[in-house]
Amino acid sequence: MRAEIIAVGTELLMGQIVNTNAQYISRGLADIGVGVYFQTVVGDNVQRMKESLRIAKGRADVIICTGGLGPTQDDLTKDVLAETVGQRLVMHAPSMDKIEQMFQARGVPMVESNARQALMLEHSEPLANDTGLAVGVALTHEGTHYVLLPGPPKEMKPMFDRYAKPWIVSRMESVQPLYSVMLKFAGIGESQLEHALIDLIEAQGDTTIAPYAKEGEVAIRLTTRAVSEAEAQTKLQPLEADIRRRVGEYVYAAEDIALEEAVLRRLADQGRTLAVAESCTGGLLSDLLTNIPGSSAAFAGGIICYTNRVKHGLLNVPMEQLEGVEAPGAISEETARMLAEQVLALTGADYGVSVTGVAGPGESEGKPVGLVYVGVAARDGETTVKQLQQFGNRETIKLRSAKSALYHLWKRLNS
Amino acid sequence: MRAEIIAVGTELLMGQIVNTNAQYISRGLADIGVGVYFQTVVGDNVQRMKESLRIAKGRADVIICTGGLGPTQDDLTKDVLAETVGQRLVMHAPSMDKIEQMFQARGVPMVESNARQALMLEHSEPLANDTGLAVGVALTHEGTHYVLLPGPPKEMKPMFDRYAKPWIVSRMESVQPLYSVMLKFAGIGESQLEHALIDLIEAQGDTTIAPYAKEGEVAIRLTTRAVSEAEAQTKLQPLEADIRRRVGEYVYAAEDIALEEAVLRRLADQGRTLAVAESCTGGLLSDLLTNIPGSSAAFAGGIICYTNRVKHGLLNVPMEQLEGVEAPGAISEETARMLAEQVLALTGADYGVSVTGVAGPGESEGKPVGLVYVGVAARDGETTVKQLQQFGNRETIKLRSAKSALYHLWKRLNS
Repeated sequence: MRAEIIAVGTELLMGQIVNTNAQYISRGLADIGVGVYFQTVVGDNVQRMKESLRIAKGRADVIICTGGLGPTQDDLTKDVLAETVGQRLVMHAPSMDKIEQMFQARGVPMVESNARQALMLEHSEPLANDTGLAVGVALTHEGTHYVLLPGPPKEMKPMFDRYAKPWIVSRMESVQPLYSVMLKFAGIGESQLEHALIDLIEAQGDTTIAPYAKEGEVAIRLTTRAVSEAEAQTKLQPLEADIRRRVGEYVYAAEDIALEEAVLRRLADQGRTLAVAESCTGGLLSDLLTNIPGSSAAFAGGIICYTNRVKHGLLNVPMEQLEGVEAPGAISEETARMLAEQVLALTGADYGVSVTGVAGPGESEGKPVGLVYVGVAARDGETTVKQLQQFGNRETIKLRSAKSALYHLWKRLNS
Repeated sequence: MRAEIIAVGTELLMGQIVNTNAQYISRGLADIGVGVYFQTVVGDNVQRMKESLRIAKGRADVIICTGGLGPTQDDLTKDVLAETVGQRLVMHAPSMDKIEQMFQARGVPMVESNARQALMLEHSEPLANDTGLAVGVALTHEGTHYVLLPGPPKEMKPMFDRYAKPWIVSRMESVQPLYSVMLKFAGIGESQLEHALIDLIEAQGDTTIAPYAKEGEVAIRLTTRAVSEAEAQTKLQPLEADIRRRVGEYVYAAEDIALEEAVLRRLADQGRTLAVAESCTGGLLSDLLTNIPGSSAAFAGGIICYTNRVKHGLLNVPMEQLEGVEAPGAISEETARMLAEQVLALTGADYGVSVTGVAGPGESEGKPVGLVYVGVAARDGETTVKQLQQFGNRETIKLRSAKSALYHLWKRLNS
C-alpha cells in the first residue's frame, strides 16, 4: 500500500512552521507497514490543492491530508476533496452539537463559520476530533483511500492514532496486526550499535529491525505481523534475546522512555534521591530531569557551578585546586570528584552527579573542546569519575554530556 | 518567481527526521521575495526523483533540491538532474583537492566513492561547501533554475545563505535588493502585539510587516526593496518609529538574538553578574543562559532548589515559611523574594533571579498549574517580585516562566 501525505497551509510554505505532521504520520504509517512514497506541502489555494490531489491519486493508494479543516475562508480541504470526487458536503450532526455546546459553555455567541467544522462528504465516514472541533473525514473513492485530518498537532495526533490508523488498517489487504518492541540504548552510538547488529539488520525479513537516533539516545524497534500476541512473541523474543546477548548492557528500557525517566523511576523504586553539580552542562541535566512529571520524588535539585567562584564558594572546591599553573583545574578528574561528593553532602541526597568540561566553542584551561568529566558519588559507596571526549557544537556537547552523566548513574544504580 | 523545494531522502519518508530544511529554505526565499508554491519530499529512488523534477519544472521557476549529494550509492540527486537536463557530470577540481586533503589530514585512505562529492554538471556553477565536502550545484536550463544543496543542515544552511540565495537573486528580474529590520519583543504575546499593530499590518504594501512567534518570544520583521541602504532607511525608519511608539517598551533587540543573549550582553556591558535560584523551571533558565557562548562572563551559576529541603538547606528559607497550614509556602511572593536575595548573597553576584511556581501537570500546595512567582534582587537596590499565570503544558510553562524571569531582569537592567 503506497501512501502520500499532503500538508495544506500557506504558513508551511512561508517557513513560519515546520511540517512535523508529515513526520508524525510517516512514522505512524511505517508502524502499520504502509510505505510513504511522497510528502507534499501546498498552500491554501483551490487550484493548487486540486492539482496536488490529482497527482497523488495517480501514484498513491492512500492519501492523507492535514490542515484546512478549520472555520475560516482559508480552510478549503473538504471543499476541494468534495469537488474532486463529485460528492456534496453534509452536516455531521454530533459534531455540530458539540460545536454549539462548546459555544454555549463559553457563553459566547457562535460565529456561523464554525458550522463548517462539522461538514463531511456525503458518503464518507467521520473521524472524531477528541481535542478540537473540526471533524475528520475518511473516504474510499474509485479505489483510492482519502483521510482528512486537522492541521494543529494536538488535534491531528489523537485523530490519526485513534481513528485514522485503524481505518487504514481496515482497508489493507493484509489485516494481520503489527506487534513491536522498542529497546532504548544509552552509552553506545548509533553506528556502533548498527555494527554490532549488522548481520541481523541485513538478514531482516518478516520481522524488521529499525534503528533510530535522536537527541543523544539510540533506539531499536522490532516489528512483526502476527495473528496473535503469542505468535508475535515467538517471532520477536528470540531476536530480542539475540540483541540483548550482544549489546544488552546498553539497554536501559524496553519501552519508549527517555533515559532521565528511566533513572528517576529506578531511583524512586529504590527510595533514593539525586542531586547534581553542573558546570559545562549549565542546567541542562536538571532541565531534562525536571521535564519528567513527578521528578521531585527523586530529584532534590543541585548547583549550577558555572564559575570557579561558585565551585569554590558553594561547593568548597579549594581555589588552589581550580587555579594556578600546577593545579588540576576546574576541568579535571579531581574537581569532578569533589563536585559530586560536595553536592551530595550539601543536599543530603543519596547520589551526587557532577559534570565539568569544555562545551566550546573555544578551549578552556588549555583543554580541548569536548573534554568532559562525569562524577558519580554515592552516600554508601565510592565515587567514580569518567573522562569523555564529546564531539559536536556547544549544544550537542552539553546534551551528550548530560546524557552520559545519566548513563553512568544508571550503571551504578544497576550494579 | 515561483519556487519549489524538493527534499530527497528516504529517512524523511520513514519519519525518522523532520524536514526542517524546507522551513529554513522557505523562510530564506520569503526574505528575498521568492514565493514557495510547493514543497515535496521524495525517497532515494531514481524514477520517483525524476518524476518530482518533471512535475516541479511544470510549475516552478526555481527548483531547490536538498539531500542526496553525499558519497554513497543512495546519493543520486546530481545523477538524476544530469540525466534530466542531458548534461554530463564533471569533476570540480578544487572540491576534489579539498576532499583529498581532508583524508590526508586525518591519515585515513580515501574511499573512492568520496570523489562523487566533487561532481558537478558540466555547464553548472559550483556552490562552495564551507562546512562539508559535497559541492553544491546551480544551473539554469531551459528557463528553469536548479539549485542542489546537501541534506545535513549544518552544510545546507551556510551554502544556501552564502551562495545559493545570492545566485537566485542574480537570476531574478527585479534586482532591487531587500532590506529588513528585525525587532524582538518580550513580555507581550503575539496576539496582543498584532492587535496593537493591526492597522499597520493590514495597510502594509511595498514594505511588509511579518510577525513571528516561537519558543516564548515574538518578533516582527520589516522588509522592503530599495535601490540603496539610504532609500531603505527612509522607508523602514518611519514604520519602525511608529511601532516603537506603540510597543517600544517590549522591544529588547533590533536584531535576531534570544532574550537571554540580550540580557547577558547588557550585564557584561555593565560589568555585572547574575545568579539564579530555580524551582519550577528546574534548570531551564540556566540552560538557556549557558547555551550562549561566553555566558560565563556574566552568568555565575545558581541553585536548582527543586525541593523544600534544598530551599531550606542551601538557600536558608525557614521551614516555617515553606510548610504548615498558615505558611505562605514554596510557591509564594515571600519565597520568591527570599530565593532571589539568598542566591545573590551566597554567590556574590550583582543580581539574583528566582522562579518558583507550579509547572504541572498537577497542582501543588493547593495552588493552580501555571501560577508562577519571579523575583529579582539587586546588590544595590530593592527586590521586586512578579506574580504570573502561565498556560500550557509542563514544558511550555517552564519555558514561559524562564523567559518571564529574563524579561523582568531585562526591565530592571534598563530602568
